Amino acid sequence: MASVRKTDLSGATCPIARSLSDIGDWWSLLIVRDALAGMTRFSEFQRSLGCAKNILSARLAKLVEREVLTLAPASDGSAYSEYRLTEKGKALRVPLVALRQWGEEFLFEPDEERLGLVDKRDGLPVAPLALRAQDGRLLGPDDVQVSATLPEAGTVPDPA
Amino acid sequence: MASVRKTDLSGATCPIARSLSDIGDWWSLLIVRDALAGMTRFSEFQRSLGCAKNILSARLAKLVEREVLTLAPASDGSAYSEYRLTEKGKALRVPLVALRQWGEEFLFEPDEERLGLVDKRDGLPVAPLALRAQDGRLLGPDDVQVSATLPEAGTVPDPA
Repeated sequence: MASVRKTDLSGATCPIARSLSDIGDWWSLLIVRDALAGMTRFSEFQRSLGCAKNILSARLAKLVEREVLTLAPASDGSAYSEYRLTEKGKALRVPLVALRQWGEEFLFEPDEERLGLVDKRDGLPVAPLALRAQDGRLLGPDDVQVSATLPEAGTVPDPA
Repeated sequence: MASVRKTDLSGATCPIARSLSDIGDWWSLLIVRDALAGMTRFSEFQRSLGCAKNILSARLAKLVEREVLTLAPASDGSAYSEYRLTEKGKALRVPLVALRQWGEEFLFEPDEERLGLVDKRDGLPVAPLALRAQDGRLLGPDDVQVSATLPEAGTVPDPA
């Protein structure tokens, strides 16, 4: 049954369904989180996630198959291989930050310690992600609609 | 084993892990997607998702338990109950838009039809979500770091 669901969603016209089909399980997203934090080796992921090796192996293989990670010889010349994020993998930074900010707002007590994402320059937390129109206007829930179209690709702003 | 994972992650100091523990399965996020699109009834979700009724029941019950949805008498006075999003549920709009935009960029052929999120005013797709500092600067991957802190809550910009 899992494979039926997967097949259905991977061909969905809804990009959310397709994304969940591609990377939508905990372990995969937590692996990507760790890779974004600089981890590259099996042993590092294993230590961070504390999951069974066979589960981690399967998830890493799937992420390589989906071209979220690539497997490359270690940069230090050792016998170990390194998992590196592709552009597709690096782009998961934004959904992960969105999940992080949602969790921070709704799943922690105000005085509870948490791992926060901060701007290196001023040490302040990054601003909450916000929906904006192409011209920069902030968009509320009633300002947008889903439509079956072939949208022009938006331009990703280039960090200074 | 699933429950062991869940217990671990729900107490994690990482908000991403906690979020995934709270709402991190496909069906739950697709239900929230449909609720954000205006659906309120079991039959609507069932038609949209095409999943087995017992799975849908279990997921809806979990979302109510997690206070993402509330169950209320139907607004039209009929015998049916309505599932309505809480503030916590409505706030999942941002992670879902982030997943949507990632999927649009990496999981569709350029000429493939997809459901896009557009600004009602000008009909254009919403701009890609971007990380910004509190002062509005765009932040690239090297401009941020994760730190074990108790960040001040950022202020969510108020849509005009």
